Amino acid sequence: MIIDIHGHYTTAPKALEAWRNRQIEGIIEPSRMPAAAELRISDDELRESIERNQLRLMRERGLDLTIFSPRASFMAHHIGDFQVSSTWAAICNELCYRVSTLFPDHFVPAAMLPQSRGVDVATCIPELTRCVEQYGNVAINLNPDPSGGRWDSPPLSDRSWYPIYEKMVEYDIPAMIHVSTSCNPAFHTTGAHYLNADTTAFMQCLTSDLFKDFPTLRFVIPHGGGAVPYHWGRFRGLAQELKKPLLSEHLLHNVFFDTCVYHQPGIDLLTRVIPVDNILFASEMIGAVRGIDPETGYYFDDTRRYVEAAAITPDERRQIYEGNARRVYPRLDAKLKARER
Amino acid sequence: MIIDIHGHYTTAPKALEAWRNRQIEGIIEPSRMPAAAELRISDDELRESIERNQLRLMRERGLDLTIFSPRASFMAHHIGDFQVSSTWAAICNELCYRVSTLFPDHFVPAAMLPQSRGVDVATCIPELTRCVEQYGNVAINLNPDPSGGRWDSPPLSDRSWYPIYEKMVEYDIPAMIHVSTSCNPAFHTTGAHYLNADTTAFMQCLTSDLFKDFPTLRFVIPHGGGAVPYHWGRFRGLAQELKKPLLSEHLLHNVFFDTCVYHQPGIDLLTRVIPVDNILFASEMIGAVRGIDPETGYYFDDTRRYVEAAAITPDERRQIYEGNARRVYPRLDAKLKARER
Repeated sequence: MIIDIHGHYTTAPKALEAWRNRQIEGIIEPSRMPAAAELRISDDELRESIERNQLRLMRERGLDLTIFSPRASFMAHHIGDFQVSSTWAAICNELCYRVSTLFPDHFVPAAMLPQSRGVDVATCIPELTRCVEQYGNVAINLNPDPSGGRWDSPPLSDRSWYPIYEKMVEYDIPAMIHVSTSCNPAFHTTGAHYLNADTTAFMQCLTSDLFKDFPTLRFVIPHGGGAVPYHWGRFRGLAQELKKPLLSEHLLHNVFFDTCVYHQPGIDLLTRVIPVDNILFASEMIGAVRGIDPETGYYFDDTRRYVEAAAITPDERRQIYEGNARRVYPRLDAKLKARER
Repeated sequence: MIIDIHGHYTTAPKALEAWRNRQIEGIIEPSRMPAAAELRISDDELRESIERNQLRLMRERGLDLTIFSPRASFMAHHIGDFQVSSTWAAICNELCYRVSTLFPDHFVPAAMLPQSRGVDVATCIPELTRCVEQYGNVAINLNPDPSGGRWDSPPLSDRSWYPIYEKMVEYDIPAMIHVSTSCNPAFHTTGAHYLNADTTAFMQCLTSDLFKDFPTLRFVIPHGGGAVPYHWGRFRGLAQELKKPLLSEHLLHNVFFDTCVYHQPGIDLLTRVIPVDNILFASEMIGAVRGIDPETGYYFDDTRRYVEAAAITPDERRQIYEGNARRVYPRLDAKLKARER
């Protein structure tokens, strides 16, 4: 089985974006604020948006199952207040849940949180609870910078984040550390902000002793870990300078990298440098880079091709495709086993 | 000949830091502001600080010459106003110049600029002019984020940066794009902020048509280009999505990467992905990562070992060590030729 642990609902029916635009207008002009109930998307519309897109590509690429969360760039936690984020997160999470019920063999939901700039992250717990207990979500996306590129939140090691970690530990769910749209003109969203956030989050973990406080907490760093594997020597050296244990002890029981790296040399480096136990298959398909690579003739985000061609053993490949995901996402494993998969 | 294009004066006599601390106190308490003339460092002190450190390691590693600029983390353009930065830059640049006169065979200076948060970058031109015309500097370091991690400057493609570019073109000098200390607790200086800045700057160039306006402008992206080579497929795909030309046309006449990547797999990826014409040898020695790699028994920042072991031809290695530096830094080439090197 091949599990893609990083899929977003980037192809939701246009009505979703239209509703969101009205919500954003409503922040300034409260009389125009739409009710959540005004958004109506039928099951047929959901089915079509998935069958024509993600599911079609999953079949073409031989992928069995995707951990599916709301579109990352649309989370936009910097827009409006907690109430705005809360309504928006509830809508987006419900859609991913509905997709998972329409295609139970192919999609398992992960939740976005109703984070809001400057608001206590503990306010996200009711939505998290609802998503895990009622919607069967197996993970969350945690935004280390709800400001959208101003980076005014404390590092992930700060105690203000702990209420979320306590809940994650209780439910035994991992968090993908994933920012959203950059509203800072210095940072291009998918070309700079995403990768920077990955590197930043890893370094926030490295300088701290977060995983001493939460030995079972698990973070997935997307986009192949940003700059981290390419600079693994630098990070090993910085850890040494900071008198931290070896990274294998200090971070690799808790931090995992996905394979959203869109060319063969990148995946080759990732699999050469990072222990196989810490690599999770993912494509983030129909995401940042949707085109066909003229050098190969295949989609940039068809990451399975790179993993197939990497110099690893068949056993290691199975770990990356399935075994590690079952270990890092135990609620996914339980769900699969309940269906005898 | 082996030219290290990325060296900073990280080992300056302690009197320098003491003077700077007094200057910082003087921002709040003007009566304590020291005069520049109060800093006294003798030639012998300079000699010793270099001979025991950079020069000793250069000899051990077989490096002939270093392009030498003030310590990057000490630039701290977010501290004080333009006057503070101006005095500080003048002092630091003078020290690097003095080092270059004491060791003319081994050190060639590059200038820091007296940038200051929110101040027109054109104010840096007098110092730039002085450094090129009087001190023989062959390059500058340009900080894309003088705020120290708040990222409130416009992208490098913004016209507000153009006065510096016009001067660079006039003098035919490149800029290394290099941030300084992060005062944002989200960003570790050398583990996140530096690498993020590299990625950010590259993407600012990619989304713009800066090099149409300045076809001969040259940027060196340090630290192996941040996350860029590891994600080269992503960047090629983003350029394609943005309807830009191929990166080889769009950026690679103007953008270069150094070899400050502190492990073999990173240098192997860099040399596999980036055309050899765009790679410049560098170590940033006695910098961010000063320890010995327990996996190899050698210094992390002994990058020559990695370049020696990379799968490239002797000709390509010579280009990385010397040829490219002479081409990208024509004033260095002229200086060397004048000394029949």
